Amino acid sequence: MTNVGVWIIGACGSVASTVIAGAKLLAVKRAAPTGLITELPELADMGFLPFDQMIFGGHEISNKSLRKSFTVLSDAAGINQKLIENIGCQLDVVEDNICMGTGMGCGKSISALTDKSVNIDAHHLLDLTAKISEDLDNFKRKYNLRTVIVVNLASTEPPVPPGDHIETLEGFEKSLQNDQKDLIQASMLYAYVAFKSGFPFINFTASHGASIPALLELARAQKVPHAGKDGKTGETLIKAVLSLAFKYRVLRVLSWQGYNILGNLDGKVLDNPNNKKSKVNTKDGVLPQILGYRPHTHVGIDYVPSLSDWKVAWDFIHFEGFLGTKMNLQFTWQGCDSILAAPLVLDLVRLVELAHRNGDSGALVHLALFFKQPLGTDVASLPEQWDLLWNYLKKVKEV
Amino acid sequence: MTNVGVWIIGACGSVASTVIAGAKLLAVKRAAPTGLITELPELADMGFLPFDQMIFGGHEISNKSLRKSFTVLSDAAGINQKLIENIGCQLDVVEDNICMGTGMGCGKSISALTDKSVNIDAHHLLDLTAKISEDLDNFKRKYNLRTVIVVNLASTEPPVPPGDHIETLEGFEKSLQNDQKDLIQASMLYAYVAFKSGFPFINFTASHGASIPALLELARAQKVPHAGKDGKTGETLIKAVLSLAFKYRVLRVLSWQGYNILGNLDGKVLDNPNNKKSKVNTKDGVLPQILGYRPHTHVGIDYVPSLSDWKVAWDFIHFEGFLGTKMNLQFTWQGCDSILAAPLVLDLVRLVELAHRNGDSGALVHLALFFKQPLGTDVASLPEQWDLLWNYLKKVKEV
Amino acid sequence: MTNVGVWIIGACGSVASTVIAGAKLLAVKRAAPTGLITELPELADMGFLPFDQMIFGGHEISNKSLRKSFTVLSDAAGINQKLIENIGCQLDVVEDNICMGTGMGCGKSISALTDKSVNIDAHHLLDLTAKISEDLDNFKRKYNLRTVIVVNLASTEPPVPPGDHIETLEGFEKSLQNDQKDLIQASMLYAYVAFKSGFPFINFTASHGASIPALLELARAQKVPHAGKDGKTGETLIKAVLSLAFKYRVLRVLSWQGYNILGNLDGKVLDNPNNKKSKVNTKDGVLPQILGYRPHTHVGIDYVPSLSDWKVAWDFIHFEGFLGTKMNLQFTWQGCDSILAAPLVLDLVRLVELAHRNGDSGALVHLALFFKQPLGTDVASLPEQWDLLWNYLKKVKEV
Amino acid sequence: MTNVGVWIIGACGSVASTVIAGAKLLAVKRAAPTGLITELPELADMGFLPFDQMIFGGHEISNKSLRKSFTVLSDAAGINQKLIENIGCQLDVVEDNICMGTGMGCGKSISALTDKSVNIDAHHLLDLTAKISEDLDNFKRKYNLRTVIVVNLASTEPPVPPGDHIETLEGFEKSLQNDQKDLIQASMLYAYVAFKSGFPFINFTASHGASIPALLELARAQKVPHAGKDGKTGETLIKAVLSLAFKYRVLRVLSWQGYNILGNLDGKVLDNPNNKKSKVNTKDGVLPQILGYRPHTHVGIDYVPSLSDWKVAWDFIHFEGFLGTKMNLQFTWQGCDSILAAPLVLDLVRLVELAHRNGDSGALVHLALFFKQPLGTDVASLPEQWDLLWNYLKKVKEV
Repeated sequence: MTNVGVWIIGACGSVASTVIAGAKLLAVKRAAPTGLITELPELADMGFLPFDQMIFGGHEISNKSLRKSFTVLSDAAGINQKLIENIGCQLDVVEDNICMGTGMGCGKSISALTDKSVNIDAHHLLDLTAKISEDLDNFKRKYNLRTVIVVNLASTEPPVPPGDHIETLEGFEKSLQNDQKDLIQASMLYAYVAFKSGFPFINFTASHGASIPALLELARAQKVPHAGKDGKTGETLIKAVLSLAFKYRVLRVLSWQGYNILGNLDGKVLDNPNNKKSKVNTKDGVLPQILGYRPHTHVGIDYVPSLSDWKVAWDFIHFEGFLGTKMNLQFTWQGCDSILAAPLVLDLVRLVELAHRNGDSGALVHLALFFKQPLGTDVASLPEQWDLLWNYLKKVKEV
Repeated sequence: MTNVGVWIIGACGSVASTVIAGAKLLAVKRAAPTGLITELPELADMGFLPFDQMIFGGHEISNKSLRKSFTVLSDAAGINQKLIENIGCQLDVVEDNICMGTGMGCGKSISALTDKSVNIDAHHLLDLTAKISEDLDNFKRKYNLRTVIVVNLASTEPPVPPGDHIETLEGFEKSLQNDQKDLIQASMLYAYVAFKSGFPFINFTASHGASIPALLELARAQKVPHAGKDGKTGETLIKAVLSLAFKYRVLRVLSWQGYNILGNLDGKVLDNPNNKKSKVNTKDGVLPQILGYRPHTHVGIDYVPSLSDWKVAWDFIHFEGFLGTKMNLQFTWQGCDSILAAPLVLDLVRLVELAHRNGDSGALVHLALFFKQPLGTDVASLPEQWDLLWNYLKKVKEV
Repeated sequence: MTNVGVWIIGACGSVASTVIAGAKLLAVKRAAPTGLITELPELADMGFLPFDQMIFGGHEISNKSLRKSFTVLSDAAGINQKLIENIGCQLDVVEDNICMGTGMGCGKSISALTDKSVNIDAHHLLDLTAKISEDLDNFKRKYNLRTVIVVNLASTEPPVPPGDHIETLEGFEKSLQNDQKDLIQASMLYAYVAFKSGFPFINFTASHGASIPALLELARAQKVPHAGKDGKTGETLIKAVLSLAFKYRVLRVLSWQGYNILGNLDGKVLDNPNNKKSKVNTKDGVLPQILGYRPHTHVGIDYVPSLSDWKVAWDFIHFEGFLGTKMNLQFTWQGCDSILAAPLVLDLVRLVELAHRNGDSGALVHLALFFKQPLGTDVASLPEQWDLLWNYLKKVKEV
Repeated sequence: MTNVGVWIIGACGSVASTVIAGAKLLAVKRAAPTGLITELPELADMGFLPFDQMIFGGHEISNKSLRKSFTVLSDAAGINQKLIENIGCQLDVVEDNICMGTGMGCGKSISALTDKSVNIDAHHLLDLTAKISEDLDNFKRKYNLRTVIVVNLASTEPPVPPGDHIETLEGFEKSLQNDQKDLIQASMLYAYVAFKSGFPFINFTASHGASIPALLELARAQKVPHAGKDGKTGETLIKAVLSLAFKYRVLRVLSWQGYNILGNLDGKVLDNPNNKKSKVNTKDGVLPQILGYRPHTHVGIDYVPSLSDWKVAWDFIHFEGFLGTKMNLQFTWQGCDSILAAPLVLDLVRLVELAHRNGDSGALVHLALFFKQPLGTDVASLPEQWDLLWNYLKKVKEV
């Protein structure tokens, strides 16, 4: 019983398809480990979960096919299409493990993607959690899995109104019982069920997921580890290192304007002002944390369909030097979102699984490196986050 | 006897004029301490040399005036011209402390700048060292100075042929005696005299200065501290942080092309392929040190007169992510060179003076943060360099 | 009686101050004619209005001073401050010709700038037009002027609801009589009074001004020429030429995203979504006109105070070439808005004055070169617009 | 006898492979006509040579395969690989028409590419011309072709020493007879043979080709049309429109720095300073022609292997506006070279064939639109070049 389940929310999305296809290719050594920290030679003896022991399944609300998603992505990314031929049937097999998910409280832009014929969002919230729980159990039983890591790769949900359902587990569970659909969102439901089942949870998105006090409490009670939130793949990654140059040179950042344009589903959903709000929130916190003051900032996100899975970000940094002289730095980042995200997800699955085996629970602070808004810490400098991870791994190895 | 001399090689250059005018303005609190680490509130009790205890003098080979240099610079930098009116006469006073320098072995581009009427480069090398030594002594005596910090801010010299004059102090001194002008360069002569006189030396340029084994030996023998080489002000500073994003994400840098265009005297001298060679050398080392491998790189430097003291750098970074997908990042840096350099020079003067008082000698490793090619260490990551400095200061304070 | 009045709406703004100071400096040959078409050697014998025959006055709603505005601008633009000393008193003299203006229907952002102590916007619309008319008459009489050119340099007004007040002169005048302040805007009032007085009008902004059918009708009836609208100074200028490369190479523009950040008052006003709407409208029309189809476009405008009078625009153009290959072009424009606008305004004053003398009336089509949304023509290609102007001037000279 | 031969020098290169594959795909309507002027609807009745009447052949010096070249290119360009499967065998058929070419006088970088086993460059120049002539004749006879258009798509040759072999046909032919291999280059030999055979010639490269007086004379004598030189595909295309904005706004360009990085064979050859010289020459002429003065310029070309067929160009334009204010514009162009070039080549083949049928001879001035250094005209503005072409076509249609 060595296999571990990886249960993906948003299982047929572009990132999910790259994660799954990537794992399959890594398992047979058809892909180089570029982008994967857990494959660094110096960590070879850490005993990370091997790729061929990851069994994939998940929830999905649209009627997209996993294979189609990966074909579209690999076309946009310029991946050699021979790789895809090798992997196609394996994706079809995973597709059998994908169940209808919920888009509860995700806003109109996400609802619009739902496969109407099997929409389950009209069910009572307690029925929904029961259904999700059953899906996970069936999956675990079918493959005789040691455990299941639940990973949220779905689109960003809008912010949620404050209240007891956020603040306390009791309040949260009362809302479930009262079927208060305006207060509870899909990402919370998934995290709730995962913790109840004793499964680790990874929130790779800017949605609330397990980051609300109610669920932080549950995770601690259930002694289950989790990590989040919002994978740091592109513009924010660059912000987290560039800002160090200004800090260490005592140059005053006056304004930092960032404009992101992207063409995938994520971009379409973020074009909705409500969903965008959650995202801008996680993207905008890095600078004050590193610089120690809050310059004028702006984070724009616009949907440009022709870019498909590519994201282009232009950042303009206006800063002041000695004797009041104003200077500037600008950068343009052109990255393929799913390609950047996938190895982080695989690293996170392995690192969370290791922590779980190691008996850790609650928000995993040492995984701050991977997130825009790391849970349980406000260390925002990339090198310090790297040290957090490295020191953790060193300690695990010593034991 | 608390005043300390700051003796600048290239004393009427753009950087020198900004350093001197900046110190004068800081002394009377007419300039904000932007860009100065030694003015950070958390270091307020370190006992750094106050700005009004810095007495300036130096060597210069051209017949430029210090005041004129600062006027040109402040025009280019958009500095409020009222500041300059306040400082003008003080610059004239410093001008009295500026002696004719040597451009020995600096190549044709630098020689062309020399004030022909008082050119001293025909003298025997021993006479030149005697003259430099005398200039320093006179300066020290005139102002009853505690010590003198010699700072090289002159233009970049070409590389020098290998040999004993480089490798051993004995060989170096033999070349002086034999007047071998093809082997010995101005920056070495200045460092040599400084060390002989027991004065610290700062090499802010890409010239050899004190970095050759012969002079490293002398500094140790004379128990005098020194720091270098080549101030890290712009493009290389950004490289030193940006490259961390690729390292910590295990993204493979395929190519890193950097193009620098600049309009000041420095740019004119670096347009000469020989002088450029030294500069490209110090700029190109950062990446392999941080990344651990050597991507395809190129560092271009071109002279664009209309830019005056501004430097524009465009860097294009081509990198590979998961599944072989090629992506890119590009940045454009627009900075005013002298404005960026001056606070680093003032910080260095204070930090080297502190080390001198503290009894440190040899190459000061903890000043790596300030240099493109730090002496005595290959730590290239900016955050690690910051820690080196910070740990040093903590230790000094504890004593 | 050779002097001509130049009456500026927004007379103490940054552009106005540059126009007036520039004219004064040109009159005494202290400024080079960079940016001025009417100073091209090949047009030397066109008999354009000399700069020393331009008498300035205008309306202003804030209590800013003209001299202060130009000092701030010239500081931001890096203009040699000795120039300003020469011109200071002359600006003070012009200030005597500046009357309190109206911000009627300009939205909250503009109203907030109004000098509350002398706010005239509570007056009946007929009283307002009478007051404006009187201001113009007084000015003309005081200086015994041949005519007065009224130039709108005020901030951009929001769009206006449709209706008879827009469509017909009769409807417009009825709204005046009924004091319908929700339908009539300042720029229309000024254009209305100018035409009634027989004075030419230039609308350099994106506000309606004389571009509504009601006032187009009045201009024709009064046989007075006018020009507009929205000066083409920066990003749109570049769009108007760059798009030609795609057109003439039959490359398909998929998306053209443009982001403008700016720090002056204009930027502050355009941060208001209502006022921004008018501006985006004039900026967005160029591409479809040149390309012949409508690619995905976006025009962003954000206020970044630290930039003061500078505007930075980043445009990303995604296009498709042979065999479906997607490629891209991006540009960053860094310009000083008032400096770019001022010579266009001076050119327009001279060209409109020439047309007036020449007996032309109505919207001057041959001035399309100067505007984002030229009145009376949809020629959008810069070279064709240039030919329109050149052919007109040739014809005038022949007569 | 309606088929026309298209004989390509550099027949297995990346551009050639795209031209040939593109024509095959267009012939069966599997490719959209993006990038092709001759496919514009308004030119539908011009009677251009149909793509299925183009028969391809050519000379090549390396042992590359046409199919392999296109596979590599289409991989880099992200072309859908199903297209390639359809076209593969047709490329193999064309390969039968490819003969061993000459790299005479092309410099070491090009010679290094030569297939050593069949190198023909040791032959006497007269034997070489005889061989080339025979190759063309065989091709024409084999397919019973109406005529053959010879197109030079080979790598750029270095400049050639001046002399009679350049200036007069007599001098040129004397050099052939005397076998003066240091004076005569491959591109001239091909043009010479083409003209002798009465075949049109297109020089899409920066090599001399038919642009030397000796061969201009021959073309006129033989009454055969030709076009050149150096296809205007990317950075220079953008220069040719962008510079118009500065011209029409009377803004003074101070400096225009351009840096090109590219990864294909062309980039490798241009890394050789001698070959680069020819290229920089054709790229650098556009600005003075449009602006009417010569700003400070620089054109850099560097080889960056990881870019494969992509070219990235960064241009920085420093300009001066009103009152001496310096501003700047920068752009980054990311294009796929062969994809940009191929439709221009196909357009040129059709337009030269039309001119040939129409009885035109000598350098075809109306094709200036396609070239960096158009023969027979110094019209450099893209819109004017467009008008030249359009007026020609209108006249042809009328006849």
